[in-house]
Parts: sequence; C-alpha cells; structure tokens
Amino acid sequence: MSDTRTTLAIIGTGLIGASIAHGVAASSPEMAVRLFDAAPAVRARAAEVLPGAVCDSLEATVTGADIVIVCTPPGTMGAVGAAMAPFLKPGAIVSDTGSVKGAVVEALAPVLPAHVHFVPAHPIAGTEQSGPDAGFASLFQGRWLIVTPLDRPDPAYQAAVETVAQLWRELGSSVEFMDVARHDLVLAMTSHIPHLIAFSVVATAEDLETVTEGEVVKYSAGGFRDFTRIAASDPTMWRDVFLLNREAVLELLGRVSEDLTALRRAIRWGDGDALFETFTRARRMRREVIEAGQDIDQVNFGRTPPGR
Amino acid sequence: MSDTRTTLAIIGTGLIGASIAHGVAASSPEMAVRLFDAAPAVRARAAEVLPGAVCDSLEATVTGADIVIVCTPPGTMGAVGAAMAPFLKPGAIVSDTGSVKGAVVEALAPVLPAHVHFVPAHPIAGTEQSGPDAGFASLFQGRWLIVTPLDRPDPAYQAAVETVAQLWRELGSSVEFMDVARHDLVLAMTSHIPHLIAFSVVATAEDLETVTEGEVVKYSAGGFRDFTRIAASDPTMWRDVFLLNREAVLELLGRVSEDLTALRRAIRWGDGDALFETFTRARRMRREVIEAGQDIDQVNFGRTPPGR
Repeated sequence: MSDTRTTLAIIGTGLIGASIAHGVAASSPEMAVRLFDAAPAVRARAAEVLPGAVCDSLEATVTGADIVIVCTPPGTMGAVGAAMAPFLKPGAIVSDTGSVKGAVVEALAPVLPAHVHFVPAHPIAGTEQSGPDAGFASLFQGRWLIVTPLDRPDPAYQAAVETVAQLWRELGSSVEFMDVARHDLVLAMTSHIPHLIAFSVVATAEDLETVTEGEVVKYSAGGFRDFTRIAASDPTMWRDVFLLNREAVLELLGRVSEDLTALRRAIRWGDGDALFETFTRARRMRREVIEAGQDIDQVNFGRTPPGR
Repeated sequence: MSDTRTTLAIIGTGLIGASIAHGVAASSPEMAVRLFDAAPAVRARAAEVLPGAVCDSLEATVTGADIVIVCTPPGTMGAVGAAMAPFLKPGAIVSDTGSVKGAVVEALAPVLPAHVHFVPAHPIAGTEQSGPDAGFASLFQGRWLIVTPLDRPDPAYQAAVETVAQLWRELGSSVEFMDVARHDLVLAMTSHIPHLIAFSVVATAEDLETVTEGEVVKYSAGGFRDFTRIAASDPTMWRDVFLLNREAVLELLGRVSEDLTALRRAIRWGDGDALFETFTRARRMRREVIEAGQDIDQVNFGRTPPGR
C-alpha cells in the first residue's frame, strides 16, 4: 500500500490514449498506468493489446491517480469530467488531448473540483486510424504538443503545468504554450478545415461513384487518394471538433469559399493569369512546411509505386 | 543511314517527358531516343541528366521519328503540333500525355498531317515535382495509362494504337481505353478538383499566414501539410488543365460547393448527425482506394515521424 510510483490514468483508449500508454511504457516504465474506456468491447481489446492495467470503472481508474489524461472525443469531456470529479484526489492533475481547446476548457473546468489542477493540452499528431490497435509509442515523437494553461499563476498550478509538459517531452514531443482562442484559430486552419474539405470532397465523389461505376476509385492516384486518407479519420471525433470549434471553422470556411469562388470565376472567364498567380503562391508553402520539419522531403510522401 | 531501330521523339522534358526517357532507356534500350524542350535552359539541363539525344530544334527532333510523344503543358500542344507537322514522316505515330483529352484532341488533331496516326493518351502518374531532374524510370510502374483513341477503325490506325499501348506497358503501366468526354469527367473528379481545392486552401492559408505569424506552417502536420504537397505541383500545367477542362471542372466544382455549403449549414445549426453521416460515408472510400491498389496500406502514407 506504500506504492510511491506516479499513477497515470488514461481515459479513452483510442488512437491517442493507446499511443500514450505505449509511449509511457517505453519512456517512463516506472509509472503505474491505468486505462479505461466507456465502451466494453474497446475496453476488452485495450486489455489485450495495451500495456497498463485496464479498469472496469471510471471510479477505479481515477481514484488515487496523480495524473489523469482524458483522451475521449471532445464532445464527451464535460460528462467524463463530471463523472470522475468525486473520485479525484486533492492535488491531482487533470489534462486532456482535445483538438479543440475553448469548448473543452469551458466544459471541463467548471465540473472539476477546486482541489485539482486542470492543464488543457493538445498533441499535434495522429493518423487516419482509430481504436486501441491503432496506437504506437512513437506517434508523438518530433511532434508539437500545445498546452493552453488556465490563468492561474500560483506555484502549485505552474508545477502541474510543468509536470504535464515534462510527460509529453518524454513521449518525444516539443511543448509550446498558447492562448486558447489562438489555438482554436490556428488549428482550424491547419487541421479542421483540411479535414472538413477532404470529408466533403470525398463524400461528393462517393455520390458521383454511382455515375462513374467505380472509376473514381480506380483512377484515384491522380490526387484524390490523398483526400481519402484524411477523410478516413474517426467520424465521431471530427463531428465533435466541428460542433465545438464552430466559430473559427465557420469564419475560415467563409474565406476558403470566397477564394474558391474567385478561382471558379477565373476558370469560367478563362483568366489564366489569376490561376497561375494563385497556384504559384500556394506552391511556396510546401517548401516552408518541409523546412519547418513538418513533412518529409520525399516525392509523393516517399510512397513506392503500389503494385496491382 | 540504315538504322532500323525505332526512333522515339519526346517533346517537353519536364517530369513526364524525363520519366519516359529514363523508363525507355531501362525497358527498351534498343530504341533511339531524341529529346527537345522549347526552353533553352531546360534543354541544357536535359542534356546533362537525361538519357537520349537532346536536339536543338523541333525539326531535328521529329524528322524521321517513328513515334513522337508530346509532353508539354496541355495549352501548348496545338502550337507544338502545328510547328512539327511539316517534318513528320508518313506513318509516324503522334501521341501525347495531356491531363485533359477533349481540348488536346481538338487542338492537335486538325493541325497534324493526314499521313500520321494521332493516338491521344494520358498516364495517371506524377509527383509534385517538375523539370528534367524530377523524372525517374519507375514513375509509371503499376499505374494506369488511359488511351482515348480517335474513331478510326482502319487497321493501320489500330496498329498505331497498339504500338502506343505496348510502349506504355513496357514502362510498367496498365493500359485502359476510354471515351474522351468520360476521361475528362472522371479525371476532373479524381485529379483536377482535388488539385484546385488544395491550391485554393493553401493560398487562403498563405494569406492568413500574415495574421498567424508562421503558425500555420509550424502546426501543419494536423492535415494541412498533405494539401501543400498537392499544391506544390507545376502551376503552368495546372493553369492549362483548368482552362482546358473548364466544363467538367465547373460542373463538379458546383457539386463540391453545394456539398460544402450543406456541411457548413450543419455546423452552424449544430446538426451532428448530418456531419457524422457524411464523414462515415467518406471514410468508406479509403478502404476501396487501398483495395483497388491505388495507395499504400500504411498509416500516414508510411511517413516516419520527421525530426526537427
């Protein structure tokens, strides 16, 4: 009963929760890790494939835990917080991995007891796959982790922020701090809008597929296949992201639609100069992304030609 | 002077022309290959890095050639055809690699002499890079090559179609035949629309970048980086594609805009079910693309986490 190890509770064993479990097992094997997922089938699978102790209830998972990381879809975080609140020990650190920070802070902060430290965070990492089997230890390696701390200058809170930052550094991430509203605007552009547009274009093509008898899939290597990868991401998580980051997404979507309408007009009027100027401006961004270390510098993402 | 080898003339030494040169050197070393590019600097570079004889004029390149493949931007093909027409020998085969077939056939067919066989073709292969240095022999390996033959049932023409098909098979492609209009509709969906949207979204982000002080690039790994790869493609080529496949692109863009507007409304009204349904439908397409052998079955395209 005198276990002095840090106890980490991971709530939600999808791609992110599962990857944290693998990563901590590799980088901080001295930590005691507990896992929980609300879905019994997912929980059973987590018990088979993930390191750590899978618990049968939220209460058993968080009771006595030093750090609790909520990795459930953003729309569920308020309810998860309320359900676990009675069992959180004084001084416990609660963090999350939500892709939206404003709405998650609004939902979680009020339901957590005053005696815990809430440190909102967001790893800029992921794949198009989901569930416990999708997790892997190196997911966060060389990726950004954004912390959006509450406005609480007391040393105990600042120490909690540092504990969370350090945990992510040990998973291989570089930690940055950001204002909640700025996070939600920047991520709307870098992540939410590209996903929404990929989902939309692929769904349009799916409708059209009845007309083209499979030819959209057959000839998808011309560019469309890249959109299908993004559109393969978890529908539940993304539904929540768009509902919860509504304001920033709608604002940017307005800009995107305007710019697309301008290109449409340029095509209709045969204005090749306008097209060329836009395309040239867009092209420059690729070099910047590679120079920033955010993508590999290999043609076609290094894909080898797949056989058929 | 009694050279009985087949002479292949490649006009345009960008990504596609250069890759054909490399591919033919590897698969059909018995062919005599001649290369030409209208830009002197590109031509000089082609002479340094490509197998085959780089000629100083279009006339020298096509005179006596058995097969001529025009690999220039689609908007230039009519002019190239007219310029080389006087020098084409009777029975020569003229083919092209244009991403648009309707407009290219309309531009090329009338300017070519009646004594040559024009076989329009389009390899569904490419990367985001351009120029002679971008070419490599395996670009067409395991990829589709679409031939859109003219309506000419005479055996000499049919033999020319088969010669072109065989040349591409030797480069590793699988050859399919298609109607011109259908090609332009299917490719608008699988290639032209994804490129237009990627160009547009990346250009929007580039505008916004002044506001976000580099943060869009910094956090681009959330999805945006994939759009920048597509948007890195050659602006000249793509300008021509949109101008020349205007009808199909505008029609599909109308559908895409409608569907995006519907998603926008669903976000505004908080209609999570509509979002979830669309995302789930889109997700299914990924599996189909992988099963069709059009992309690799590895998370994140098999990208390893880039260091920083």
